[in-house]
Amino acid sequence: MAKDEVMETGGGGDFAAKDYTDPPPAPLIDAAELASWSLYRAVIAEFIATLLFLYITVATVIGYKHQTDPAVNSAADAACGGVGVLGIAWAFGGMIFVLVYCTAGISGGHINPAVTFGLFLARKVSLVRALLYMIAQCLGAMCGVGLVKAFQSAYFVRYGGGANTLAAGYSKGTGLAAEIIGTFVLVYTVFSATDPKRSARDSHVPVLAPLPIGFAVFMVHLATIPITGTGINPARSLGAAVIYWIFWVGPMIGAAIAAFYHQYILRAGAIKALG
Amino acid sequence: MAKDEVMETGGGGDFAAKDYTDPPPAPLIDAAELASWSLYRAVIAEFIATLLFLYITVATVIGYKHQTDPAVNSAADAACGGVGVLGIAWAFGGMIFVLVYCTAGISGGHINPAVTFGLFLARKVSLVRALLYMIAQCLGAMCGVGLVKAFQSAYFVRYGGGANTLAAGYSKGTGLAAEIIGTFVLVYTVFSATDPKRSARDSHVPVLAPLPIGFAVFMVHLATIPITGTGINPARSLGAAVIYWIFWVGPMIGAAIAAFYHQYILRAGAIKALG
Amino acid sequence: MAKDEVMETGGGGDFAAKDYTDPPPAPLIDAAELASWSLYRAVIAEFIATLLFLYITVATVIGYKHQTDPAVNSAADAACGGVGVLGIAWAFGGMIFVLVYCTAGISGGHINPAVTFGLFLARKVSLVRALLYMIAQCLGAMCGVGLVKAFQSAYFVRYGGGANTLAAGYSKGTGLAAEIIGTFVLVYTVFSATDPKRSARDSHVPVLAPLPIGFAVFMVHLATIPITGTGINPARSLGAAVIYWIFWVGPMIGAAIAAFYHQYILRAGAIKALG
Amino acid sequence: MAKDEVMETGGGGDFAAKDYTDPPPAPLIDAAELASWSLYRAVIAEFIATLLFLYITVATVIGYKHQTDPAVNSAADAACGGVGVLGIAWAFGGMIFVLVYCTAGISGGHINPAVTFGLFLARKVSLVRALLYMIAQCLGAMCGVGLVKAFQSAYFVRYGGGANTLAAGYSKGTGLAAEIIGTFVLVYTVFSATDPKRSARDSHVPVLAPLPIGFAVFMVHLATIPITGTGINPARSLGAAVIYWIFWVGPMIGAAIAAFYHQYILRAGAIKALG
Repeated sequence: MAKDEVMETGGGGDFAAKDYTDPPPAPLIDAAELASWSLYRAVIAEFIATLLFLYITVATVIGYKHQTDPAVNSAADAACGGVGVLGIAWAFGGMIFVLVYCTAGISGGHINPAVTFGLFLARKVSLVRALLYMIAQCLGAMCGVGLVKAFQSAYFVRYGGGANTLAAGYSKGTGLAAEIIGTFVLVYTVFSATDPKRSARDSHVPVLAPLPIGFAVFMVHLATIPITGTGINPARSLGAAVIYWIFWVGPMIGAAIAAFYHQYILRAGAIKALG
Repeated sequence: MAKDEVMETGGGGDFAAKDYTDPPPAPLIDAAELASWSLYRAVIAEFIATLLFLYITVATVIGYKHQTDPAVNSAADAACGGVGVLGIAWAFGGMIFVLVYCTAGISGGHINPAVTFGLFLARKVSLVRALLYMIAQCLGAMCGVGLVKAFQSAYFVRYGGGANTLAAGYSKGTGLAAEIIGTFVLVYTVFSATDPKRSARDSHVPVLAPLPIGFAVFMVHLATIPITGTGINPARSLGAAVIYWIFWVGPMIGAAIAAFYHQYILRAGAIKALG
Repeated sequence: MAKDEVMETGGGGDFAAKDYTDPPPAPLIDAAELASWSLYRAVIAEFIATLLFLYITVATVIGYKHQTDPAVNSAADAACGGVGVLGIAWAFGGMIFVLVYCTAGISGGHINPAVTFGLFLARKVSLVRALLYMIAQCLGAMCGVGLVKAFQSAYFVRYGGGANTLAAGYSKGTGLAAEIIGTFVLVYTVFSATDPKRSARDSHVPVLAPLPIGFAVFMVHLATIPITGTGINPARSLGAAVIYWIFWVGPMIGAAIAAFYHQYILRAGAIKALG
Repeated sequence: MAKDEVMETGGGGDFAAKDYTDPPPAPLIDAAELASWSLYRAVIAEFIATLLFLYITVATVIGYKHQTDPAVNSAADAACGGVGVLGIAWAFGGMIFVLVYCTAGISGGHINPAVTFGLFLARKVSLVRALLYMIAQCLGAMCGVGLVKAFQSAYFVRYGGGANTLAAGYSKGTGLAAEIIGTFVLVYTVFSATDPKRSARDSHVPVLAPLPIGFAVFMVHLATIPITGTGINPARSLGAAVIYWIFWVGPMIGAAIAAFYHQYILRAGAIKALG
């Protein structure tokens, strides 16, 4: 359909010969996978990446809170010192950009149990791999936060450890909904960036993929920090010692909706509707 | 012309054999298009993208205004809390980057009636598609703002709902002109990024295209927030309950000028002048 | 030389068969060029791009100064309202990114007489083209600033029109030197991005080229705003009504040094030293 | 392993025929190299790049401190003037992006003795080249800071010359550990970006490589400025007159761990474990 192709990569063309191949769904349990070093290497990479993600981001949060604490700084420094809320949003988004770039070739660069869950629902990773990734991400997040705590023991406790909390004035339902939509934005971007259809037409997309994924995280933080501090990543919330259900249920629902939207509306919709 | 080619992609070469093909103008009404699922999928994608755009950006605006409200915060927090005007500009520009990246392959990634209007004037989309897109964008924008209102009902009204308004001290004519130029910058960037001549020479441009488009939106916000709050997108202004003519007329005129500049001065000019 | 190739694009290899062709030096005056529409189209594109550059950037500066003016705002808004100095630096750098991206295929995307001068010294543009570009850039800059002045007549004069001035406490020599080094950073980046040797090895560089060029402008503004407000672009300084010699002499010297460094040290050095 | 390939570039595939070639380890001393102009050109490029890096970044730091000095500015300007800590982090990260982009084809774009040390440990540069680079980097850094000092003699001393210092409340061990982890993030990103395995699969990575490297530096600054001011680059610390051991030992240990992690865990791990 020519009208489809007005912009970047063209669309449509569902009826023409496909120039891409959807990989077969991943099995739930793949015995051969369990014997491969590449699985364990990927699990290690997820562990290290999530550790670095939490270390950098929580250190940024704690450092900012310390630099703007009126109890230890002059009024002027307390007002405007530190990197600001904008700097915190950059820390989260930028680290996801860097770490997805670095680990994409090793583990796929999930660094977030909700992303792993969404890709599992779309049958892009096996159940075993998904579980191992999630465990590695949660352990990595706890170790990353542990490093910040070890380095800044006094400040860490005083400033709340970078934990996600529901801001005053918002209901649990609002917090849950904000987490769902925020995670939807992230996981939808991940699906868009890794779609084999896109790659087939435009083989350079993989290179750029980490950048919009990182920006999606940055954007969601700009909007959601005033509401929940922005979880959208259960490992991040768990690492910062939050065992509060909305930071698990929200991201998982958001990821599931994104997987459904991408797989059924955007990809398989034409087939379902017409054939 | 060798001198033309000193920088990035080379220019000129109008007289050599063309290495690109301009697609034929889109028909006004294409019956086959109406029967294709890909049209409706594209309309859904425009709806969801505009919804997410307004949700994230208006939530950022409301959250910022709440965090800097002297009535509910300490003086220091009121002075410098929140993401700042710079963070708001990033929210608008960054979301356009992410969403154009995600939807480019499905709908062309317009997310703005003025962009759709400019591409329609250049005969790159059919009239039917343009109208359906604009309706989907306006509905999506209203739903996105509705979500923010539902989540933050108290704050939403108090802080004006993220609406565009003419700042004190500026005339209607200035506001209109600022909207025209701002939209010109955006739509000119869209035309530059999607020019088939550019793609032919440099097949990787489509990949990067969402980034300069997002940056154009970011830049225009830096300059125009003090004047009108920056519309340049009638769906965005309508979503935030603004039914003020300059936010429709300005963007449409700006888009029309950009379409004219690109199609007649930059592209067809040589043919007109010499043939 | 294998050691050369440890990183991005590999270096060295001067003695192997060259995989690129240096274009012949541009003639000073090319009669055929004067008869081509593409030259005049390029001049128009430089005019419009410089107009938009000055409009957006000076409007950002004026808007920021108005939003932080204690005479018209509350103390808190005056302290932290507006986009900040960081936002101003983004406006300059980001617009160069967007406009170089848009005009690269038409005119080469100079948008700065110092860049045109550096490329002329390296014999990459003809003398005629260089002069026409510089005139178009200066006229465009004056029109862009004129638009801001027309829109914001009261504020424009009150806040100094976004002009470059030497900050208190700095000597003329320091201002000149800061302009020289700042322009060197910009023009060196332009030469690096447009080197045919680089393009031959890595044909995708042209796509990304506008991004580092824009970042170079952003960086120089971060460092030089406290000293001179950052010229590094005589058209920008002229547009904002500065007819002060350091903003012409500094950028031209910086561009000349960058042209010399790139052409003699980095490119032709091996040939001179060894052959 | 299909599961490996869920995201950007695919992973695994260690058992299939390799589609890339690891270059042989660089010799410690390569006599031919010493006779090539390209080595000396690369050393000059490292010198100039490190000079520009320190000039821009230290000028940004000094300018920011001057603009926010309550002794010379109004309270409002002192509170929020200047580019902020976020702007300083951008200056460091953005300059690395620009300079790695510019010098990658000439010298590999190290601009940091710790990066050179890490690449030497991985046998990607010869010992001679590594030593010459480190000397050039240290000299360049001292000259860059010397320029700032010459331009801003009064302010330079007053504001501490942009030196790295351990913030009050942190132990030496914490400073050392923060430097190690920060440098690990940077050098791990460098190894990821320049891996021949990645390049083979995705030949466009080199183009984007400077961007994640620059972002890695930006991120580390956001997190580490409150602790040590962020060294992660011994030449940067030396240039700013810091001869304090943690700014040499920390980066070197971090670079060594990154080299080990990339070479033994991520790359050669499969071979070691299975063959």
